[in-house]
Parts: sequence; structure tokens; C-alpha cells
Amino acid sequence: MRFALQLAEKSLGQTGINPVVGCVLVKDGRIVGIGTHLQRGSHHAEVHALQMAGKEAEGATAYVTLEPCSHYGRTPPCADRLVAEKVKRVVVACTDPNPKVAGSGIEKLRSHGIQVDVGVLEDEARALNEMYNKFIATKLPFVTLKSATTLDGKIASRTGDSKWISGELSRSRVHMLRHRHQGIMVGVETVIADDPLLTARLEVTSLQPVRLVVDSKLRIPLEAQVVKDRTTKTIVLSTNQASIEQILRLNALGVEVIKCGDGPRVDLRKALSILAQREIGSILLEGGGRLNGAMLEAGLVDKIMLFLAPKIVGGANSPGAFMFEGFERMADAIVLERMTMERFGDDCCLTGYPRLERGEEETCSPES
Amino acid sequence: MRFALQLAEKSLGQTGINPVVGCVLVKDGRIVGIGTHLQRGSHHAEVHALQMAGKEAEGATAYVTLEPCSHYGRTPPCADRLVAEKVKRVVVACTDPNPKVAGSGIEKLRSHGIQVDVGVLEDEARALNEMYNKFIATKLPFVTLKSATTLDGKIASRTGDSKWISGELSRSRVHMLRHRHQGIMVGVETVIADDPLLTARLEVTSLQPVRLVVDSKLRIPLEAQVVKDRTTKTIVLSTNQASIEQILRLNALGVEVIKCGDGPRVDLRKALSILAQREIGSILLEGGGRLNGAMLEAGLVDKIMLFLAPKIVGGANSPGAFMFEGFERMADAIVLERMTMERFGDDCCLTGYPRLERGEEETCSPES
Repeated sequence: MRFALQLAEKSLGQTGINPVVGCVLVKDGRIVGIGTHLQRGSHHAEVHALQMAGKEAEGATAYVTLEPCSHYGRTPPCADRLVAEKVKRVVVACTDPNPKVAGSGIEKLRSHGIQVDVGVLEDEARALNEMYNKFIATKLPFVTLKSATTLDGKIASRTGDSKWISGELSRSRVHMLRHRHQGIMVGVETVIADDPLLTARLEVTSLQPVRLVVDSKLRIPLEAQVVKDRTTKTIVLSTNQASIEQILRLNALGVEVIKCGDGPRVDLRKALSILAQREIGSILLEGGGRLNGAMLEAGLVDKIMLFLAPKIVGGANSPGAFMFEGFERMADAIVLERMTMERFGDDCCLTGYPRLERGEEETCSPES
Repeated sequence: MRFALQLAEKSLGQTGINPVVGCVLVKDGRIVGIGTHLQRGSHHAEVHALQMAGKEAEGATAYVTLEPCSHYGRTPPCADRLVAEKVKRVVVACTDPNPKVAGSGIEKLRSHGIQVDVGVLEDEARALNEMYNKFIATKLPFVTLKSATTLDGKIASRTGDSKWISGELSRSRVHMLRHRHQGIMVGVETVIADDPLLTARLEVTSLQPVRLVVDSKLRIPLEAQVVKDRTTKTIVLSTNQASIEQILRLNALGVEVIKCGDGPRVDLRKALSILAQREIGSILLEGGGRLNGAMLEAGLVDKIMLFLAPKIVGGANSPGAFMFEGFERMADAIVLERMTMERFGDDCCLTGYPRLERGEEETCSPES
């Protein structure tokens, strides 16, 4: 199963809104087939492994990181295929949260007399598909907020200078994160201040996420790199108050504008919901501070990756990574769960998951 | 030598302005004596080990974490004692930066035909005495800045609420840090806002550092805990502008006031220099943000320990851990070297050493 998870991990970022899945077929102590789901619409992991095994599949044990599917999607159900190939036993890491599957794949296998064991390395398998799990359950993209700050929480000096905060290894990690998300989101202030290219630049060719610019008043400069560069598509998320002339100008340059709400600010939840309908299942949120703060306040951030550079830049008005009104009491602060630490050269990367049900917890706490 | 370092480490905090030193005597494959310097004015590590060894010392090898002393201080020179006990060989981790020793201990041993090897686990040994090394070389106390912040760099919410930022394990670590320093320094604003007790509270009895309050206008409330509590001494660092009446009031309550400079603000370098003359060789700086910033800007901070709690509290005006004007360019930011990460429960502690020669480096950089 450990090997099956490794197979799955390699495809992170290239299966779109599909989960990553790995499969290893074992018979008489030998591996007879391996497979991983490489791309949406193409074979699932089980099918690759069964094809590799050929006649050896009969009587084999299949280790699969996710419950085999039981429904017709873009490909026929894998559960049926495992039955047809006369696999003897299936070991599953975790069930599929997709309501179209949700245990029915396992039931189908069992109903055909196949022994099924569930829960081997379950946590690891579930973590691997954290993006898919969120998307399939909520129809909203999984949002990873990534920021690089100094130790005093600043993303730029008091004059706005931000080059560079983090070191080379951190920045290269960010390009891998871009590769693994389907969209990169920034606020228009970041485009105006830094004019970033927002592409994934790795040593090898990488997938290019869609660029998403949150811009309620369509202030985006027509000469910005994200407008002119054709490496990938750019979508501007605006409001119904956006001027039609500016929309047409942007359209003429190949940039799409989506109106999200009637208010003076972009309705972020609505924006994410529209993006989900377009099958953008994961977004890397790269700030600035105001957009990060608004997304956090709206409860739309699923994961935070904070690259801390060993620097102190000072300045009361130097911009921070999370700019919002803030809480009155420390006890009300947003809490990150399951925090882990990693080292990237001189930088330290802290990763955690904002506790989203904070409000609810408070409601039912002290008196109960 | 590893064992000798462990012996030395146990005495951290209890040797005052003296270094910690460990010594292990080995003869014919057996440990025949161990020693550690326990307290200023009492036996050095070598003497304890030699006394334990008795006649076995003759022909033994001594592993010492610091060069044996060669001068008469509060105790006679250890080098002479090692010679007198006919030790055959001495292995030294690092030389003593004390100008009264600085290699002369090793020379003396060699001149009596003892084989001396220097540099075994040198870096570890030097790090262990980082406080002593600074103090003996500069006649200024070693300053460890400790702060606990949220991930957005805040030490309190926008309303000033700070209870609690870090978790229990971090806070207990701070009490150990207090035990290991001779002084705890805070700004008067912290006393006014939080009324802290500023004592070391461990599960076992601990040493109590002197409380140091930086207070240019003598605004310290007479009913503050640091004034009323008698667990340890409190010194207020003020200026020549301090009112004599208020000084007398504080004196009557057992609090000493030291005038540091004529300006409107406390001359921090002068303050540290006066404290060093009083044999305070190490200070734990516990903020608030303004004092931390001033100490950093003055280049008086030797080490920073930042406890990061997995929280985001927000608020543009919520106070930060380092409040000072700040740099124009990110490239000018204060850089921490040798950064390490530690975990304390849910918190992460980053430790590093501000690069102090920053200014000089800039002067001789681009054109050269």
C-alpha cells in the first residue's frame, strides 16, 4: 500500500478534479501489475495495473489507495473490471467521498465474493486527495493560501519592496505548488504592485494553472504580464459594477471577465462556486494581504503554507500576509490544526489547516 | 567529550558570569573521575574530577570542554593542578576567549610535557558558552530576545488581549529560559499592560533572575507586581530626567533606579554596560514590541527565540513583536543566521542569531 501511495503521489496536479490513485497487484509474493491514474478521462489506476498483469490478475490481491469506482463516469466502473479479471482480494486505503461511490464500490466487490479490507494507511491516503475530497463534497475548489513573510509577518518593506523575502529553495517549491493547483489567485493590488507572471516555472515542463485576478473595479493594467502573456489563460473576477468598455478591452486581449455579485466587492464564495462549475478544483491563493484576509474571513481557505524567511524588516505600516479587521480576543483567533514544519534552505515552512467550524464550536462551548 | 559536554550543560544558568565546564577523566578504558563547574567561586570542573579520581588521576587523560584556566581568579589555576596530579594527556574542546587565559592554559600544560589536543566537538562546546563568550569579550551582557507571536507576527489582538498566544509547553520552556538568564528585561508598557510577575516558575525550584524594567519617565505603577513582589530584585533603568521623588518612592519599596543617559530615552547600550559591571552577564528580553525594536536597532540583541503559535489574529494595529521604523529595502532587513526549528506542542520555536556586522558589510560590498 505504501508503494501504491507513492505511485498516486507522482500524479498530484495532473488529474484535474479527479483524485490521484495508485494500484499494486500482488500474486504469490510477486508484484504482477502497477498502475496510477495519470489524467482525467484516461484509465484509472486499477485498469493500468490489470492490463499490465494480464492473465496473472486472476487470484491476485489488489492494493488500491482509493475505493474502486462503481459508476459510469468518463470510464467504466473499476469494480466491475476487478470482478471480471477474477481478482481474489482487494485492500483499500480509504473510501471515496464522491456520493456516486461512497461505499458502493466496496459493496459491489463483496457481493461478487471478493474479500475487501478497508483502512490500510487510511490517513495518508485521505491526505493525498485533500483537494479532491473538498471539491467532491462541497462543489467548491480547495484553496491553499501560500505566503512568504519575514519573521515579523511582513510581505514587503514599508516602501513596498518585496524582492526577495524567501530563498531559492522556497521559491522553487512554490513553482511545484503552482504545478499542482488548477488556478493561481491574486488580488489586483498584487498585479499593480509586482506585475507577476504567475506561471509555474520548474526545471522541467510543468502544468500551467489558470490565472485568477480578483479585481472589483477592473483596475488591472492592460499592459500587465498576466494580460499580455499567453502561457496560460487569465480570468478576472469582478462585479456587476465593472465597466463594459473595460471588459471588452480585456476580452479583446484574450482575458475573460466573470461578474461575481452586485456588491462593491467581489463575492468570493460565488466566485469560487463559478470556478468549481468550470472544473477548477484547486486554487493556490498568493495574496496580497487584503485578499488573503478576505478569503480567510469568508472561511474559504482550506490550507495555509507560510514560508518564513529568517529576516526582520520592521515598519508599522509594512504590509502583512493577512490583512483584515482582526479579532478582539486572542481566544477568538483563527487556529491552524495539524501544523507541520519543513525546512527549505534558510527558510522554514509552516503548513496547517484553519479550523473552519470555529463559529459553531463557540456557540456550543462554555455552558455545555 | 560528549559526556563532558552533557555534564557542562546541566549547570547552564547557575554559574553566573562564569562559563559552564565539564570534565571527564579516563584511565585504562575506565572513567575515574567526572566534574562540572557548579557555581561561581566554587571548584572548577577539573578539580571536582581530580578529587574524585584521587591517586587514579596520575597517568589519566582529561577531557575538558573548555581550556583549563592558567590564572588566579576566585580559585587557583586548574592547569597547575592538572600538572601537579600528573595527568598524562588533556583533550580540550575549545580555547577560552577570556583574555586572561586565551591559550596560556594550554601552553602551560604543554610546557610541563602534557600532551594537549584541542578542537574536539569545538562548535558544540563554544555554543554552550555563547553567553560567557560574548560577555568576556565585550563586557556587555548576552541578550536573548524571546517573543511569542501569532503567525501574522502579533503579540496581542487589536484590543491588546494577549492571553494566551503560545501553549503550555512553550510557556514552560520560557520559565527554563528565565532560570538560565541572570536578568529579565521588559519595557514599562508591558508592566502597565500585563502586570507580569517576571519570575521563573518551574516544577522544581529555580534561580530567579533580576527583573529589569526600561522606563524613561518612571511611569511604573507602585502597585505593579514587579514592585511589590519580593521573590527577586527589581531594577528600573531610567534617565537623568527621572523625578527624584518617584525614585525615592521606588527605593522605599526596595526597587533600585539606575539613570542611563541624559536623553529623553534610556541609553540602552549604557544600561547594558552598567548591568555588566554588576556582573549581570545574560539578559532575557521579553518585550514588548517597542523595546524589542529599539534593542534590535541598537544592535544589542545576540539571539532571538520566536515561539510561533498556529493562530492568526489579524488587525492592522494589533501590536507586533518588533516595532521600529523598519527598512526601506527588503535586502536591508536584519538577517538571522544559524536558524533552527523546534516543536513545543502545537507551537513552533525558531531560534537564530541576528547578523550584527550588517552595517559594515554594506559599506564594503558592491564596489569591492
